[in-house]
Amino acid sequence: MIIVVKPGATAEEVDNIKSKLIDFGYTLHISEGSDRTIIGAIGDEDTLRDKPVMSIPGVESVIPILKPYKFISREFKAEDTIIEVKGVKIGGDELAIMAGPCSVESYEQMRLVAERVSSNGAKILRGGAFKPRTSPYAFSGMGEEALKYMRKAADEFNMLMVTELTDPRDLPIVSEYADILQIGARNMQNFRLLKEVGSQPKPVLLKRGMAATFNDFLLAAEHIAKEGNDNIIFCERGIKTFETTTRNTLDLSIVPLIKNASHFPIIVDPSHGTGVKECIAPMSLASVAAGADGIMIEVHPNPVEALSDGDQSLDLDQYDEVMKKLRVIAPAVGKTVA
Amino acid sequence: MIIVVKPGATAEEVDNIKSKLIDFGYTLHISEGSDRTIIGAIGDEDTLRDKPVMSIPGVESVIPILKPYKFISREFKAEDTIIEVKGVKIGGDELAIMAGPCSVESYEQMRLVAERVSSNGAKILRGGAFKPRTSPYAFSGMGEEALKYMRKAADEFNMLMVTELTDPRDLPIVSEYADILQIGARNMQNFRLLKEVGSQPKPVLLKRGMAATFNDFLLAAEHIAKEGNDNIIFCERGIKTFETTTRNTLDLSIVPLIKNASHFPIIVDPSHGTGVKECIAPMSLASVAAGADGIMIEVHPNPVEALSDGDQSLDLDQYDEVMKKLRVIAPAVGKTVA
Amino acid sequence: MIIVVKPGATAEEVDNIKSKLIDFGYTLHISEGSDRTIIGAIGDEDTLRDKPVMSIPGVESVIPILKPYKFISREFKAEDTIIEVKGVKIGGDELAIMAGPCSVESYEQMRLVAERVSSNGAKILRGGAFKPRTSPYAFSGMGEEALKYMRKAADEFNMLMVTELTDPRDLPIVSEYADILQIGARNMQNFRLLKEVGSQPKPVLLKRGMAATFNDFLLAAEHIAKEGNDNIIFCERGIKTFETTTRNTLDLSIVPLIKNASHFPIIVDPSHGTGVKECIAPMSLASVAAGADGIMIEVHPNPVEALSDGDQSLDLDQYDEVMKKLRVIAPAVGKTVA
Amino acid sequence: MIIVVKPGATAEEVDNIKSKLIDFGYTLHISEGSDRTIIGAIGDEDTLRDKPVMSIPGVESVIPILKPYKFISREFKAEDTIIEVKGVKIGGDELAIMAGPCSVESYEQMRLVAERVSSNGAKILRGGAFKPRTSPYAFSGMGEEALKYMRKAADEFNMLMVTELTDPRDLPIVSEYADILQIGARNMQNFRLLKEVGSQPKPVLLKRGMAATFNDFLLAAEHIAKEGNDNIIFCERGIKTFETTTRNTLDLSIVPLIKNASHFPIIVDPSHGTGVKECIAPMSLASVAAGADGIMIEVHPNPVEALSDGDQSLDLDQYDEVMKKLRVIAPAVGKTVA
Repeated sequence: MIIVVKPGATAEEVDNIKSKLIDFGYTLHISEGSDRTIIGAIGDEDTLRDKPVMSIPGVESVIPILKPYKFISREFKAEDTIIEVKGVKIGGDELAIMAGPCSVESYEQMRLVAERVSSNGAKILRGGAFKPRTSPYAFSGMGEEALKYMRKAADEFNMLMVTELTDPRDLPIVSEYADILQIGARNMQNFRLLKEVGSQPKPVLLKRGMAATFNDFLLAAEHIAKEGNDNIIFCERGIKTFETTTRNTLDLSIVPLIKNASHFPIIVDPSHGTGVKECIAPMSLASVAAGADGIMIEVHPNPVEALSDGDQSLDLDQYDEVMKKLRVIAPAVGKTVA
Repeated sequence: MIIVVKPGATAEEVDNIKSKLIDFGYTLHISEGSDRTIIGAIGDEDTLRDKPVMSIPGVESVIPILKPYKFISREFKAEDTIIEVKGVKIGGDELAIMAGPCSVESYEQMRLVAERVSSNGAKILRGGAFKPRTSPYAFSGMGEEALKYMRKAADEFNMLMVTELTDPRDLPIVSEYADILQIGARNMQNFRLLKEVGSQPKPVLLKRGMAATFNDFLLAAEHIAKEGNDNIIFCERGIKTFETTTRNTLDLSIVPLIKNASHFPIIVDPSHGTGVKECIAPMSLASVAAGADGIMIEVHPNPVEALSDGDQSLDLDQYDEVMKKLRVIAPAVGKTVA
Repeated sequence: MIIVVKPGATAEEVDNIKSKLIDFGYTLHISEGSDRTIIGAIGDEDTLRDKPVMSIPGVESVIPILKPYKFISREFKAEDTIIEVKGVKIGGDELAIMAGPCSVESYEQMRLVAERVSSNGAKILRGGAFKPRTSPYAFSGMGEEALKYMRKAADEFNMLMVTELTDPRDLPIVSEYADILQIGARNMQNFRLLKEVGSQPKPVLLKRGMAATFNDFLLAAEHIAKEGNDNIIFCERGIKTFETTTRNTLDLSIVPLIKNASHFPIIVDPSHGTGVKECIAPMSLASVAAGADGIMIEVHPNPVEALSDGDQSLDLDQYDEVMKKLRVIAPAVGKTVA
Repeated sequence: MIIVVKPGATAEEVDNIKSKLIDFGYTLHISEGSDRTIIGAIGDEDTLRDKPVMSIPGVESVIPILKPYKFISREFKAEDTIIEVKGVKIGGDELAIMAGPCSVESYEQMRLVAERVSSNGAKILRGGAFKPRTSPYAFSGMGEEALKYMRKAADEFNMLMVTELTDPRDLPIVSEYADILQIGARNMQNFRLLKEVGSQPKPVLLKRGMAATFNDFLLAAEHIAKEGNDNIIFCERGIKTFETTTRNTLDLSIVPLIKNASHFPIIVDPSHGTGVKECIAPMSLASVAAGADGIMIEVHPNPVEALSDGDQSLDLDQYDEVMKKLRVIAPAVGKTVA
């Protein structure tokens, strides 16, 4: 940690800063420049992070040096983590394609989607059973019934199943059906929920919060990894910005940033990340070109009848069109499509 | 709901739009202009809100007309809701001052703060027992022990006690001690938690999420009110913007917006809302001048020793200085200080 | 324009709203619903746009229906505009690759870059002569000398030359050398400058402002097109958001949005759009996959010696690597590389 | 400047970093920690700022220590700068109230406003003659005629006159009439314009750009101060955020930040800063409570007839109501109202 002392600080203030820092447990290196005194404070940043150094009179700024996360970092593990469930790999050469409707509506719907997408590159079926909705009057999912339909359709076509968990009390029931547990954007900093999924063995797909910086996102994953779960999949799904033509602003630059900083895979959700139909296919292609390990995409057999988010779902033909183009793009970035 | 038809739409497309809207349950008013056909669709927007109207071919845009919330609105209840707990009122003429440390650290600390702030305008003691922290390595609160210390100190000085609830499973224990349940910014869209606090009788202090628009904030409150709880206190605490000199950007304009749109009171938290010591006192005064019903402010007997957020806490003398100025400002906006 | 009347408005207020609207020059269609009275107001939105309709007592909201731009829209011109300068086309099947250093530093530097990039896909040389810089102490370009070096290098390799214009008083000198005039992000709403470039014949490359919404961006282009210049190239280069790991957040979703709304081409600048070296190559690929008509990319023969923005420049080998991958990706989106 | 070396950097890389830094002109202090090597680089940051240190292989991060501005800082001048024009002071104990319509429409209009506001606290008349407008079809001001009307009305009531300058070519004509030159938000980084107003003697009111950080804002002022003009007035007028209920998000926290960092006064414009009528009065009061040296407020004798921005103008009675409340609030923050 670097502490910059205010230019006008008195000798007493500087001495007090030093003694406080030593009390906090730091070892100090002092550089007295002509413009500023700068103090390098070395210590265990994990335990020292909370100390109110800025509150010591005479301190101008405090600059952390070490990264605030460990288990998720490339420094902790240099090689890519490849997550494997029932023979399906996420994070390897093959793109992980997760497709399905926003909400599970019926077994027949899930079967139709699973049949089509599994025949064209997708090995993971997505769908919502417990839906967090901004409005209390919006459709919030069919609950366990949805889990059953999705599981049945997934099994029929040898697909994995990923679905969202919104409450720690639902962990047993969701785990009974799902292969991958999704933590949604609104719960990215629900730290109690992160702790629960960190303490169980199934892989966790962690969506970026709408107000989460790169650092916040990494730290949310660290909450999970610290509990022992080392099967984490990052998922970029857009952030809140002043641009409201799209529902969110899909921040694809985070893909290379995450690949650099962490050994875990990252996928992109262009459906929620844009919320605008005309953007979904182009941004699916862009996600893979940017280096993502896969995409999560909303596909509905008949979007105009969907119970939720129909406006941002592709139909089955549009899905096929995206996959056709992805097969051209993937080799440029060292990836394959199943 | 207003549906704007694309300028080049064919007669078949327009007919299809109309019949879909009728299928969805709307009654239609058509205006054929020279530039655009505009369809006014009347129906129960609560149940119709989810319909994928944008997905119907030929639709250019869809504009909702009715407000998406009900119980929290001024239309539902014109006069201000004044919340009363053990004789303390929130939302009336008297400013609600909530003061205390970020984290409860000891009984002695709580007693020191309660003694001082209760003697100068504050009737509500705040403090964290279960702390959501961005880093998994940061101090996350003392749990039930903290609740006990806070309760004891509050009782000793006839104060109410407000503290954060982060997990539905903690509701029984937190309710046992607290008078007001706080939902933090990170949980503003934890809809399951909102439902729980909506179904119990204690007042709820709802903090604005860091990515929450005015509308998102109102809808989060509607999640609570819809369950039957009509004792809600809005709390502005800053939003995420590109300005990072302050931890968040305190959006005081939301104070008059909320007062206009809802009958529930709104307070402001300038401590988390700025995260910068030099901003806390000025923004406390500004909050009241903007029309807030109170403030929630971090006060620590010795900020430089605080276990969390010491850098954004006022000490006891600084608290008194803020209160002294508030006593001058309050009458300008029709408020009093106890 | 749709005017929604407040639910509690009196009959006098409604009558006053109507008569004001008629005074302003609108023709009215009234729908009296059970919840709201809604007034459709038809008139010339260009001249009526400024009328203070929200100020009329009893008005709840005002919703514009028509798009606020004309010449740049697909409705005005359905087919893509292909800009052609000295035989080089921008907006057609072939990707427009604009490459070169942030700042022109010497003839030799420009020659080195031009030689290499012109041999691998780039037909347009970029470089800064007049540089807007956040700090008054930063290098702000070599002025006319830079224009000469760039022109000489461009001619030697049959390249077009694009450079930024920051002041209307520089138009004569910049026009003497450049083939395409660039309006930078900081000047996107310098309307007097837009008017100047709109009134002269050279193509204009318009960069998106850091706070510009999709609509602001389109309207800035309309300022140019309205003056008669119909050779406009949009350029996405990132917006300001809370994410500060990258210098800006590159908003690739705007690519399909612009292609839908306007007939003019759009390119992307991933160098300024991210400001982070590890993101430039991936985001270049993503831009093309998203449907951009080209990219503008900073290339320096020796980034570590660059006078400005060396940290976000590719070297010549990295440039070649990007082009190699673009040759694989381009066909997926119907594009070619020269 | 602090350079943090990547943990895995080789000895050769570290040596190369050191020799590059020495080449750039820095003197070095090396700290070899167990986790990281940290290099303190001391030199003239103004000339070194542009060096591409991040591009040197093995560098993990670069942290500037010194502030990037000089003339505007409290370190350069500790005491408040009070600007005085024709006996009117800005930045002293008396609040500077700048009031008037968005656009000058007629002499009669200006006379009506000047008469009323000058009799109640305002000594500075505001009004637009050259208006930057997002739409090319919106009313953009009456030009020199407007300047004449405003000057005449200002003189009649002994007021100063402030108006916006949007183009360096207008400097002579605007200077002929105005006492204070306003640089609008859209031109805050029009560095050529800043240079022009920096080189002439009249005070400059500098509005914060919609995407300008605190640091960007200070540096824009430094562009002016560096040219020799030491009469600068900062003006907060809202930033672009995801919250679009208000036109911009008024960031009042910048008031205490600026007061701490700079000796120049800061005022607030709640009219453009919110764009919502119900917010203007509350945010005017909040601005003063936050410590602003004054406010700039849109007042129109008849907002519903205004040619621009009528929806965000107060009428004359509303203006008086704000002033009445300001007279109560001002003493709390050590200010007076004329």
